[in-house]
Amino acid sequence: MDEAEKIEKAKLPGMLAVKYHPYYQGKIEVVSKVPVRSLDDFAIWYTPGVAEPCKEIAKNTNLVFEYTNRGNTVAVVSDCSRVLGLGNIGAEAGLPVMEGKCLIFKYLGGVDAVPIVLRTQDAEKIIEVVKILEPSFGGINLEDIEKPKCFYILERLRKEMNIPVWHDDQQGTAAVEAAALINALKLTGRKIGQVKIALIGAGAASLSIARVIFKAGVNPKNLIAVDSKGILHPGRTDLKDTDPYKWEICLTTNGEGRVGGIPEALKGADVCLAASRSGPGVIKKEWIRGMADDPIVFACANPVPEIWPWEAKEAGAKIVATGRSDFPNQVNNSLGFPGIFRGALDVRATTITDEMCLAAAYELAKVAEERGLKEDRILPTMDDWEVFPREGVAVALKAIEQGVARIKPTREELMEKAFSMIKRARSQVEVLMKRGYIKPIPEN
Amino acid sequence: MDEAEKIEKAKLPGMLAVKYHPYYQGKIEVVSKVPVRSLDDFAIWYTPGVAEPCKEIAKNTNLVFEYTNRGNTVAVVSDCSRVLGLGNIGAEAGLPVMEGKCLIFKYLGGVDAVPIVLRTQDAEKIIEVVKILEPSFGGINLEDIEKPKCFYILERLRKEMNIPVWHDDQQGTAAVEAAALINALKLTGRKIGQVKIALIGAGAASLSIARVIFKAGVNPKNLIAVDSKGILHPGRTDLKDTDPYKWEICLTTNGEGRVGGIPEALKGADVCLAASRSGPGVIKKEWIRGMADDPIVFACANPVPEIWPWEAKEAGAKIVATGRSDFPNQVNNSLGFPGIFRGALDVRATTITDEMCLAAAYELAKVAEERGLKEDRILPTMDDWEVFPREGVAVALKAIEQGVARIKPTREELMEKAFSMIKRARSQVEVLMKRGYIKPIPEN
Repeated sequence: MDEAEKIEKAKLPGMLAVKYHPYYQGKIEVVSKVPVRSLDDFAIWYTPGVAEPCKEIAKNTNLVFEYTNRGNTVAVVSDCSRVLGLGNIGAEAGLPVMEGKCLIFKYLGGVDAVPIVLRTQDAEKIIEVVKILEPSFGGINLEDIEKPKCFYILERLRKEMNIPVWHDDQQGTAAVEAAALINALKLTGRKIGQVKIALIGAGAASLSIARVIFKAGVNPKNLIAVDSKGILHPGRTDLKDTDPYKWEICLTTNGEGRVGGIPEALKGADVCLAASRSGPGVIKKEWIRGMADDPIVFACANPVPEIWPWEAKEAGAKIVATGRSDFPNQVNNSLGFPGIFRGALDVRATTITDEMCLAAAYELAKVAEERGLKEDRILPTMDDWEVFPREGVAVALKAIEQGVARIKPTREELMEKAFSMIKRARSQVEVLMKRGYIKPIPEN
Repeated sequence: MDEAEKIEKAKLPGMLAVKYHPYYQGKIEVVSKVPVRSLDDFAIWYTPGVAEPCKEIAKNTNLVFEYTNRGNTVAVVSDCSRVLGLGNIGAEAGLPVMEGKCLIFKYLGGVDAVPIVLRTQDAEKIIEVVKILEPSFGGINLEDIEKPKCFYILERLRKEMNIPVWHDDQQGTAAVEAAALINALKLTGRKIGQVKIALIGAGAASLSIARVIFKAGVNPKNLIAVDSKGILHPGRTDLKDTDPYKWEICLTTNGEGRVGGIPEALKGADVCLAASRSGPGVIKKEWIRGMADDPIVFACANPVPEIWPWEAKEAGAKIVATGRSDFPNQVNNSLGFPGIFRGALDVRATTITDEMCLAAAYELAKVAEERGLKEDRILPTMDDWEVFPREGVAVALKAIEQGVARIKPTREELMEKAFSMIKRARSQVEVLMKRGYIKPIPEN
């Protein structure tokens, strides 16, 4: 395929999307989970019968998780201030993204998700609204909120709510990237405690990746982070009062006190974890050549990686990963959140800790290893559907271990639940397609 | 059946509800509306493809109704400050009711509805939150919010939002009761412009009923309303500053300037429309005897009518209706809202006017007439599923006529849409039951 053909091919999903979206007028819908044998059944599901379950919950609030779908329902909440790479396009324009995320939540994770786009972009208002919505949902997925607001909102909501609040660009990306890193280190015979890492970019994803991989055993002193102004170190006093998150990184990483930019950070590093800005050319071939032997290069900017994978390979990279599905080793968030939420919901977790994300990462890494690790196959693919229930179980068990689970099913019960919920969700779509409730793709 | 048996039977739905709710753990769920042939389709429904429909909506906000499910989605919003007859039981405890309402929205109206229970009971906060949620929904159904707050919230939201905001206890009840009244007048050979009405109770439902039947031709001077302190008349200055809604009634109704209580209001009246407090004994037999010949008595308090239907009949009532399914002529809100919302959504109405409710009422009345009017059959039943799409079409056409419709399909297009949406919703449940995605009712 030549360049022109590649570009044409890359445009195809967008062309189809703009054609099919109005054809289907929505990607998700609500259906009954209970039988309606006749309209008399409404006396059970609605008034007068419904009063009895209401009274039970009024006596014991936790029963809401037994008597309703709350425990399997997540709100995908966005102010649409930074939708995909499109920027601040407004609530209505962001809705198709949120609906798509909800579709993936159900299909891969068996989780019912509801898109909630907001007519406000004020951080305090967003916090207030989401808190007021709490009794309706088992979890909150924040999506496409611009930074630095997204950090603050997440932090406040995690503190002030009793259900998991999640920002996929942070913990979600970190979980999948940690899994990829774990397997890349295995393949190149490196020990996580000794590995030297250059973290290129210091946005939402990068800072979460750092936090999670430190918990996985990376020595902070061995990590050098770079933002748009250069390497983070204690001399970066520009950050002291403006960005507490980055300032923390300045103080705790970069044991050698290195200064400079991306090339200096990469010098001698075993691993490059880049999630900075769309390339190519953000990372140059010669800088990869300056890394340790057999280096690991994750260039995860979207839509174009910081360096094209073939260039990284030519410069000596042993293992390359990107965010794209058209190259090997896609670091794809969809490998994370559906399984992680499955697990969190199945124990009615009050939060999702970094350790739960790491548990998901280890399970992801393990599945890939069982399927056979190769340089171009360090992660499982989404097609391997067992990934998701397995992650779910790992996450749920970690939640129980950490004391953030409201209920404590056994491993067997968790397996049974996660596998059956996800299998059901997938086969339900098949049946709805077969029976015409989901219309076939139009001919042309 | 003796009294004891009747009481046992009345308890059955509640006993079953408390058994089945935990078995099903939720009454609604989210499913895909689009095909997933393989995971490659996520490139169309989610990133990268989804960016194209997003960009289109960013250019023209109205396209959100073409490209997403917003136009078929309603939020069932409650602060649970007055749930059924249970009072202020809190958000979690009210969730089963809201889920049940969502189930009915879909099953009878083909409308996707999402339950939203709020962790606030402050009127201003509720207003703020609902307004912020606007871009996610095609309509808002306020439910089980206590009075007088519910009036104020409804009024503010109707003014300040560009999608229909509905309180079923107000316009919903009014639409169904107006339909019943229209047919009762037909059966007893009365003219709506001359009929004398006693309105017993001056709560949310009653005031809306008054407003809607005035639009149907009732002369306000011929209506006498009674609240808990007696007949409303211009001398009721206790209401002047405390209750603008009732004060308006004081000034515009009761042409004779009658004073007193329920018996005085009923004296000589053709029609008693009661929606006051649970009986029996709120209305006495001898008061019915004081009404005009062949009087019409609607005693719609729940759970027990203001007067037992057999007592009203013994006292000479020609036609009796109640809110209960175990007596003839049930004035049941479920006959209204699913069809009314179907119609409002199908023309993307910006509001639901009283005239649209009245259009639904006329259509309801007409269906009942086509099926054969009898004294104990003045309304259609929910089993007559064509009621709902027909109401929908009537409502939609009225919205177009009144200039509150964003789009203007033809009657034929509206018929086609409403019938197919509702038929699909019902048969989808059947298929999900048959294929085991909806589990059968447990054996015992």
